[in-house]
Amino acid sequence: MPTIAVASRLVYEVAQPTTLLVNVAVATTPRQSIEHERFTVKPNVPQTHLPVGEERNRFVRLSLEPGEVDISYEARVRLEPVTEDAPSVEQTDYESLPPQVMSYLNPSRYCESDRLASYALAEFGAMEANYERVDAICDWIASHIEYRGGTTTALTTACDVLLQRTGVCRDFAHLGITFCRALGIPARYVSGYACHLDPPDFHGFFEAYLTGRWFLFDPTRLAPTSGLVRIGVGRDAADTAFATIWGVAQLKEKTVSAEAVIGSETVGEDNAAEVAVSTA
Amino acid sequence: MPTIAVASRLVYEVAQPTTLLVNVAVATTPRQSIEHERFTVKPNVPQTHLPVGEERNRFVRLSLEPGEVDISYEARVRLEPVTEDAPSVEQTDYESLPPQVMSYLNPSRYCESDRLASYALAEFGAMEANYERVDAICDWIASHIEYRGGTTTALTTACDVLLQRTGVCRDFAHLGITFCRALGIPARYVSGYACHLDPPDFHGFFEAYLTGRWFLFDPTRLAPTSGLVRIGVGRDAADTAFATIWGVAQLKEKTVSAEAVIGSETVGEDNAAEVAVSTA
Amino acid sequence: MPTIAVASRLVYEVAQPTTLLVNVAVATTPRQSIEHERFTVKPNVPQTHLPVGEERNRFVRLSLEPGEVDISYEARVRLEPVTEDAPSVEQTDYESLPPQVMSYLNPSRYCESDRLASYALAEFGAMEANYERVDAICDWIASHIEYRGGTTTALTTACDVLLQRTGVCRDFAHLGITFCRALGIPARYVSGYACHLDPPDFHGFFEAYLTGRWFLFDPTRLAPTSGLVRIGVGRDAADTAFATIWGVAQLKEKTVSAEAVIGSETVGEDNAAEVAVSTA
Amino acid sequence: MPTIAVASRLVYEVAQPTTLLVNVAVATTPRQSIEHERFTVKPNVPQTHLPVGEERNRFVRLSLEPGEVDISYEARVRLEPVTEDAPSVEQTDYESLPPQVMSYLNPSRYCESDRLASYALAEFGAMEANYERVDAICDWIASHIEYRGGTTTALTTACDVLLQRTGVCRDFAHLGITFCRALGIPARYVSGYACHLDPPDFHGFFEAYLTGRWFLFDPTRLAPTSGLVRIGVGRDAADTAFATIWGVAQLKEKTVSAEAVIGSETVGEDNAAEVAVSTA
Repeated sequence: MPTIAVASRLVYEVAQPTTLLVNVAVATTPRQSIEHERFTVKPNVPQTHLPVGEERNRFVRLSLEPGEVDISYEARVRLEPVTEDAPSVEQTDYESLPPQVMSYLNPSRYCESDRLASYALAEFGAMEANYERVDAICDWIASHIEYRGGTTTALTTACDVLLQRTGVCRDFAHLGITFCRALGIPARYVSGYACHLDPPDFHGFFEAYLTGRWFLFDPTRLAPTSGLVRIGVGRDAADTAFATIWGVAQLKEKTVSAEAVIGSETVGEDNAAEVAVSTA
Repeated sequence: MPTIAVASRLVYEVAQPTTLLVNVAVATTPRQSIEHERFTVKPNVPQTHLPVGEERNRFVRLSLEPGEVDISYEARVRLEPVTEDAPSVEQTDYESLPPQVMSYLNPSRYCESDRLASYALAEFGAMEANYERVDAICDWIASHIEYRGGTTTALTTACDVLLQRTGVCRDFAHLGITFCRALGIPARYVSGYACHLDPPDFHGFFEAYLTGRWFLFDPTRLAPTSGLVRIGVGRDAADTAFATIWGVAQLKEKTVSAEAVIGSETVGEDNAAEVAVSTA
Repeated sequence: MPTIAVASRLVYEVAQPTTLLVNVAVATTPRQSIEHERFTVKPNVPQTHLPVGEERNRFVRLSLEPGEVDISYEARVRLEPVTEDAPSVEQTDYESLPPQVMSYLNPSRYCESDRLASYALAEFGAMEANYERVDAICDWIASHIEYRGGTTTALTTACDVLLQRTGVCRDFAHLGITFCRALGIPARYVSGYACHLDPPDFHGFFEAYLTGRWFLFDPTRLAPTSGLVRIGVGRDAADTAFATIWGVAQLKEKTVSAEAVIGSETVGEDNAAEVAVSTA
Repeated sequence: MPTIAVASRLVYEVAQPTTLLVNVAVATTPRQSIEHERFTVKPNVPQTHLPVGEERNRFVRLSLEPGEVDISYEARVRLEPVTEDAPSVEQTDYESLPPQVMSYLNPSRYCESDRLASYALAEFGAMEANYERVDAICDWIASHIEYRGGTTTALTTACDVLLQRTGVCRDFAHLGITFCRALGIPARYVSGYACHLDPPDFHGFFEAYLTGRWFLFDPTRLAPTSGLVRIGVGRDAADTAFATIWGVAQLKEKTVSAEAVIGSETVGEDNAAEVAVSTA
């Protein structure tokens, strides 16, 4: 059970009175506990902590005056994932899905699962409805989409990615979510910190709901799932932006890090196809 | 305070074992109470009642065998809307929005508020940030978009509607929601029953969050807001379909009605610009 | 060298003074000659014959008064295609393309070759640049896209088809053209008559420019290329509609036929991968 | 009748053997004659001059080896536009359009006139069908779309521009063309040099076909139409790129200029609504 030290720092130049909504603090879940954390804003403006959505994403709202603002977060997080034998993890029948996962079947802004229903069925419909199918979707994405920075924008959707064949972590996750939903698998976007990500940055991956639990998937294959630390979850990246600006502010600096604490279990290369990792 | 009698009937021909998710039962809110209701399915299959989402939309899940299934709902609903003097209803500042409305600012599948940010600002940015601006948005939609059945599909988005200039109630609501969100006003889709709708059918409209309350708007201008009865709410129509089919079933018959009960307050032509109607 | 008898009949109910542009008469090319033809309009309104574009598509313009109009065309067409050994047909280098084919490399309304550049390269970039690659593109389309009427509209583009995985002849041709252009192969849409098409209708296919000639391809695989009779060519279907209406007219009847004349060479199942058919 | 001195210089760093198609030389038309021109390429590689399309755009194809290539063009051009009294310039009836302008009514890659048919009709359908309507379209574009560099890409279409409300000259021209075609007015893209453009660059504008002639329009309102010098025309910008690269080459420098020759007629601020300028 690894313990991960995460940190992020955002520096903005604020040009006029601006409200900033920040989502960088890690979540507390049955399988992810915070041993220590510190959230610092300089200058020391009032912070409104907002637990948003059913998943209670930890947004912090800051009312900022013109000038520089320096936002730092650091935490030590203990992960106790449930791992299961991948072949035994089955898709949950539609008629057995619990109410709280139902809306994660619906199409969303960047995940047009309604448009890609036939596509998903043609590519993955014949496979067995289990963990390995979702893993095969991730393999398909990793082999069909080229990871290339600067080729997508905040408006890029799963359909765009599929056509242009390039994207970044957020786009890979959106495409994975879209295929899952089209196949009847509830899926949701997760923003977080990730060990071994190079270059270090916030990361975007996804969870699929199988056998009554949410399982982690990262179609970029750029970071081991055992080192993923959740910040927020949502229908897609629209729900979990690390920063939302109402006003005028310019990001001057962004540094992000995540590392396994020495002495804790090592975060290594996992083989997603054999071990299913659940955080719920 | 009107009392409304609503009813709907859906008949499907089911071709193979199918799960049907139905959302036709009216919601209970502080301002909408059910005096009586009856939900009947023939043949009498087990019904799983699923309260979905934070708003606890009343989905019913049915596991159906091949053959005809006849789903009837009827209810008597008492509405106690809060009405306010429209000019006094102000937009809530972004820095004062409560957590539970924040996600209704995000773009969604059919409401690409991120793509239409400049559009909304150019058309409505100079107006005062209050109830009357949202009402002006509805007037704009009513005068720019032609209500014409059969011109849109389940995949049509607000951007599509804006370009093609035609749509139905769902499309009108999506466009209204999109403009609101782009202007920083939380807005959500509402499915429901509507008095005086001709031809009678399920209706789609929207709510905008102002001065700490959700206010009703119907940009189709086809039914008085005082006669709108809520079924479900969601980010857009994807969350509140009256029926979702996993399997193969053909809709054979759909009848919908809504009428003010004699003796109760009449549902009349309201003038949305003067009286703001809130159901929260 | 087969001789084909083609015929078509269009009946419109004209509601107000309307100009109709009809494109149903077969083209004359070095390899396609008309032995006999008759174009009849009842009532007998003046016909303006317009040779449109560099390819001189044979449009006929009719100024119609309200009432029924019955447009008939029939022709007997001799085809003398050049057939070549497929493996010997190479792609023409960009630096050797003649001016008159250059614009068939550009993206067009329904063929967004600029958006699908990476897609085409990823799927077909590693293949040898010859006839067989274009044939492989057609195979890919035939196996990835389901031919299904009513799933596309006049607005559907190659990108749409790729995402939704269904379409009709026009959509199949658009996708083939798009992939070709993205790979540096001039490609153009051809409307025509087709033997053995079931049900009989106008057909849409495409030509790709290789080794200094235009070669025929039909990714629907629904009709033998040796029985394809050209009406018009263009950048995509926008250039070769069988009818364009300026005014108000309703199509009441459409019948189309194409059959090899008895005694001429039989139109059979060709194996496109072995014999390359050129009409230029 | 002004005489304009135009010049452009393009410097590329070529990384591997590359074919470059350049379109910077001015056109010769009945109303635009070249008094002098010089096209220089260093190093001195062979130039293939390709007159592309019905309009015989003057493309030059260069086969380049790795290294720097410096392409210079300069010309002295005499313009003899026909100017007419704007109110007397009428739209040509569809039934009177000559064949060579017909394809300029069709939708093209960046001008989806089929999607915007209702939009154009709703905004401009009630106006008189003449020069002033096209001028009103340009005014509408100038007042609804913000000219802002870097907000669009080579893939941006007229529909995109309409939704996002920003663009550059090419986008303004595409939107003008789209509205014209949707209203039955043949319209085509023109690339060229423009006096008084600040900062100087290649320019994109459009021509609409009225009363049997092509008239110039520039919806950016950034340069007087009397100082516009044509390079190429096409259905949209896809047909008239100043450079198309097949291979790998990086643009290192681009300088463009256009100035009225001293002693010739001054190029001034024209009032497009009163004087219609035709170059045909």
